[in-house]
Amino acid sequence: MSESIAKIGIINISDRASQGIYEDLPGKACLELLKEWLTSPFEPKYAVIPDEQDQIEAKLIEFADKENCSLIVTTGGTGPAARDVTPEATEIVCEKMLPGFGELMRAASLKYVPTAILSRQTAGTRGSSLIVNLPGKPKAIRENLEAVFPAIPYCIDLIGGAYLETNDDVMKAFRPSPSK
Amino acid sequence: MSESIAKIGIINISDRASQGIYEDLPGKACLELLKEWLTSPFEPKYAVIPDEQDQIEAKLIEFADKENCSLIVTTGGTGPAARDVTPEATEIVCEKMLPGFGELMRAASLKYVPTAILSRQTAGTRGSSLIVNLPGKPKAIRENLEAVFPAIPYCIDLIGGAYLETNDDVMKAFRPSPSK
Amino acid sequence: MSESIAKIGIINISDRASQGIYEDLPGKACLELLKEWLTSPFEPKYAVIPDEQDQIEAKLIEFADKENCSLIVTTGGTGPAARDVTPEATEIVCEKMLPGFGELMRAASLKYVPTAILSRQTAGTRGSSLIVNLPGKPKAIRENLEAVFPAIPYCIDLIGGAYLETNDDVMKAFRPSPSK
Repeated sequence: MSESIAKIGIINISDRASQGIYEDLPGKACLELLKEWLTSPFEPKYAVIPDEQDQIEAKLIEFADKENCSLIVTTGGTGPAARDVTPEATEIVCEKMLPGFGELMRAASLKYVPTAILSRQTAGTRGSSLIVNLPGKPKAIRENLEAVFPAIPYCIDLIGGAYLETNDDVMKAFRPSPSK
Repeated sequence: MSESIAKIGIINISDRASQGIYEDLPGKACLELLKEWLTSPFEPKYAVIPDEQDQIEAKLIEFADKENCSLIVTTGGTGPAARDVTPEATEIVCEKMLPGFGELMRAASLKYVPTAILSRQTAGTRGSSLIVNLPGKPKAIRENLEAVFPAIPYCIDLIGGAYLETNDDVMKAFRPSPSK
Repeated sequence: MSESIAKIGIINISDRASQGIYEDLPGKACLELLKEWLTSPFEPKYAVIPDEQDQIEAKLIEFADKENCSLIVTTGGTGPAARDVTPEATEIVCEKMLPGFGELMRAASLKYVPTAILSRQTAGTRGSSLIVNLPGKPKAIRENLEAVFPAIPYCIDLIGGAYLETNDDVMKAFRPSPSK
């Protein structure tokens, strides 16, 4: 809350990207979207790691607890294959799960591909960090993050993270009026 | 099943309402809706308690097991903030979770506010009681309960609770034909 | 993967069907749909068992581990009643849950009946087997399986099961292009 600059973690989870076989296009796609949408300053924290549950958990914990990232997005590892363990790692490190994120992202992807239902992507909070799983393909990353981003700044307010401001022309964040 | 009058529990979960800082508008909103929709008689059981998980669990258990409420609605405490623990308490006391309620209520709220995905509200059964989490704001309570209420009387039939009848002009309950 | 003929398990879970009181219409409905949609050969494995969680678990494990079924569909036992335990059994035997299946099937059923939200049906994987819970009524079985089937062949590819091909005129399976 008192930090002047928000930290945002971007973790590309991919066996092949972590070995340098693939370029880190998903991570770059996330960063591009954040730069396009956010008007408040932020410092990105970056990682490319393999589909190993313990490494994913360790990186999420590091970005949440040590780096105090208000938002951490992951890319990849959400499918049904044996090596896809991003949601498992996310559930273990999170204190509260937010099923509405996964529901809305799958519904958003369903407009494009019927295999959207195979994604097990989820979201949750750990302390003052919001963790959101995204797909691995840049096009799908945009479709998914676009769907849920309007709710992200207010979510981060509620958990005591940094105050994010967006460019309303391209991404309108919503904050309900304070009346309860 | 054999009770002539259904009991319906209404639990307003709010630190401030339980301290008398806020008036219990959410509970009153629930009661108004039930009076508007139900034609069969019911006896409301009422509580206003703070966002304390053990107190929520105890009240849910009391209303389910001792008061034999066929329906228990909670208001508030479903967001991502640290003090929001209504879904956690609900999951602990329920025997079966009904994820379709949360999905539909979030989808209904999404028509109004993009922050609908931040609600972790859920529903489940404990014995012959159906427990449904609702938001804290009266307007959102109506939008949410309106979405799921058509399925509630039949759900209560299936778990052996009281037989609820609605005024079809304002709330049409659906009971499938008995053919399997 | 190397099997020439896919095995598909069909398990009708119903106290009354397992006692012979009801004809096994749900299982027959599944088989009819599979015959209508699939052009690749498959061998059905068939069972009718009561709503007993341990028997459901045992049959799912047998069809997955011993019979190597690439797909196992269950019918019935997904509601909120005390005897409805199909989702519980499914969750216990599965390694990964796929919440998108239940979400989409409930959304599909909601177009027909508001009580769709009472279904707790889910899906998940165990080894190279995809397990999908379906409702008990033949009409609802079609509505549900139709909604998710386009994603099923690719899901089975991802978990190393048999390669299923469909008749695109009646059921178009979707496989994304291999580019990551």
